[in-house]
Amino acid sequence: MSARLDQQFAFLLEAEKLKTVYRATSVHDLSRQENSGEHSWSLALYALVMADHATPEVDPIRAIKMLLLHDLVEIDVGDVPIHSQGGAAHGAPEIIAAEHAAAERIFGLLPRDLRDEFHAIWHEFEAAETPTAIYAKSLDRVQPVLLNKLGGGGSWDDYDVTFAQVEERVGNKVARGLPHVWDWVKARIHPWFEARGRG
Amino acid sequence: MSARLDQQFAFLLEAEKLKTVYRATSVHDLSRQENSGEHSWSLALYALVMADHATPEVDPIRAIKMLLLHDLVEIDVGDVPIHSQGGAAHGAPEIIAAEHAAAERIFGLLPRDLRDEFHAIWHEFEAAETPTAIYAKSLDRVQPVLLNKLGGGGSWDDYDVTFAQVEERVGNKVARGLPHVWDWVKARIHPWFEARGRG
Repeated sequence: MSARLDQQFAFLLEAEKLKTVYRATSVHDLSRQENSGEHSWSLALYALVMADHATPEVDPIRAIKMLLLHDLVEIDVGDVPIHSQGGAAHGAPEIIAAEHAAAERIFGLLPRDLRDEFHAIWHEFEAAETPTAIYAKSLDRVQPVLLNKLGGGGSWDDYDVTFAQVEERVGNKVARGLPHVWDWVKARIHPWFEARGRG
Repeated sequence: MSARLDQQFAFLLEAEKLKTVYRATSVHDLSRQENSGEHSWSLALYALVMADHATPEVDPIRAIKMLLLHDLVEIDVGDVPIHSQGGAAHGAPEIIAAEHAAAERIFGLLPRDLRDEFHAIWHEFEAAETPTAIYAKSLDRVQPVLLNKLGGGGSWDDYDVTFAQVEERVGNKVARGLPHVWDWVKARIHPWFEARGRG
């Protein structure tokens, strides 16, 4: 029992480090950048609130678990902003390889049963093929959009993003899991881009 | 559908404010104080990892929901550190009343079904009578202890806390839901207090 607790707490204390991995988006009052720990909390809350918009094939509880775990690899790899390097950095092969190595290391701190369970959940999210993973990815993409909107532009200005780029890099992924949610969001952010001649 | 999304997003955007409610504990590298949003993420992760130590009556999924929601009232009331005012501030009647009013306001942003569900979950947590709420409270109490340990003392030094006070204010509540987890933690923090003549 004590050896099992050693492993469980080793993982939980390692996970604390996600709170100092900072993202491109700012928190609501622009006082600092958002970190990946609190971002993960937001997403789990989104999954709790938005479950009625998911297709019947989605397992909303598994989605919550995915979103709690999905960014832990950033402890080793850092956050790769979706709009950085013209949208090319996100999903680059060397980053994907580093994230897989990080998952091995971080989930490897846990007892075998939890390690295998979390690994499977993380891989399912990354592959984005099951209805649950597609839904979870939609939430992961939509929250920063709303946070940017709340903060008056944020990383859209930092990376000089156009509305077409948001549609391509973000909107398509949101719409894949939550089509009418993307319609709702689109109607509320499009004016921001139009006002800046990037609509 | 659109009116429902208006309400869901009004709640989710309000919830963003929890990220600027700061706590007495510091993050792992002491670079800043922990906020209640990322603290809630930690606790949901604890619930995911520690479920096998719960009694059979505990619903571990409901515990995750509780821990995602439990601190939202701090958007209006702020965090009340457990060791502040000699341990007397936490649980004072005026703070409890303010938290109930905050729950009305914040969960009231949601559509009726979600409002009622979240309200019930929050009240169950606050009452700390069901096995699930007792378990969730144990996790809420144990995480700051480990974070203080990780950071070399933290709020124990700020409030000049003795080991007997930690046992009284924290340990008893952790032990209520997770007795052998508290034994594990106690063995690891007691030397810190002994070394300072507060053991």
